[in-house]
Amino acid sequence: MKISTIIIFCLMVLMTGCSQHVQRFGSVIGVREEALQKYREMHAEPWTQVNAQLKESNIRNYSIYLTQFPDGDYYLFSYFEYTGDDFKADMKKVADNPRIKEWWSNTDPMQIPLANRKQDEWWKNMEEVYHLD
Amino acid sequence: MKISTIIIFCLMVLMTGCSQHVQRFGSVIGVREEALQKYREMHAEPWTQVNAQLKESNIRNYSIYLTQFPDGDYYLFSYFEYTGDDFKADMKKVADNPRIKEWWSNTDPMQIPLANRKQDEWWKNMEEVYHLD
Repeated sequence: MKISTIIIFCLMVLMTGCSQHVQRFGSVIGVREEALQKYREMHAEPWTQVNAQLKESNIRNYSIYLTQFPDGDYYLFSYFEYTGDDFKADMKKVADNPRIKEWWSNTDPMQIPLANRKQDEWWKNMEEVYHLD
Repeated sequence: MKISTIIIFCLMVLMTGCSQHVQRFGSVIGVREEALQKYREMHAEPWTQVNAQLKESNIRNYSIYLTQFPDGDYYLFSYFEYTGDDFKADMKKVADNPRIKEWWSNTDPMQIPLANRKQDEWWKNMEEVYHLD
């Protein structure tokens, strides 16, 4: 094998690893004050199969932030990136996973979805107005 | 040069490019309804020197999301990653850049900072409760 071939191969691996097609998602939901500690604890040590299913479904770089608003209410903001090519199918796999269902049966009652979210939403999807790579 | 040396070099480049040390930041601020269109327009075509200064100051993967709350108020949520090793110094360079100052002189009056933010904040910093790489 020629050296130039190897270098080109390595560059291709580099480019594939660093510049996949990515869709970004930002969303928001309320969270009950009395559930904050439990929510924090669960997310500090998420169940292995929950994280594994998210990765398997092409979710990456997923962060959830918590903040209190001046009126005293608490909100969660999530940001994640999707690197697959069939979001709907991948999200169905997430929703069908028994361990995820169990996770959600814990977290759903902690959350207060925004009343003005779309009909099929739990977390309210937000509009991206700016992005810098 | 041996083939094995070249492969190791390429792998090192790959690892450096993909696994830099990263700090993540999530923050929130209100935005005036009457400024929405102008805010969207400015951020759809940000000034070259503004984006260049952010990159120069080791900010990357920076997104801003907009959403309306059920009470009718609008909020912006930002997510970005910092890859440098002196955040304070890098942010000072951002704040001192004349083009950034001009940008902020446009955007500050569009925004309504949260009353319960910390004293030195404009955007209110949020607490990260979950992250999946």
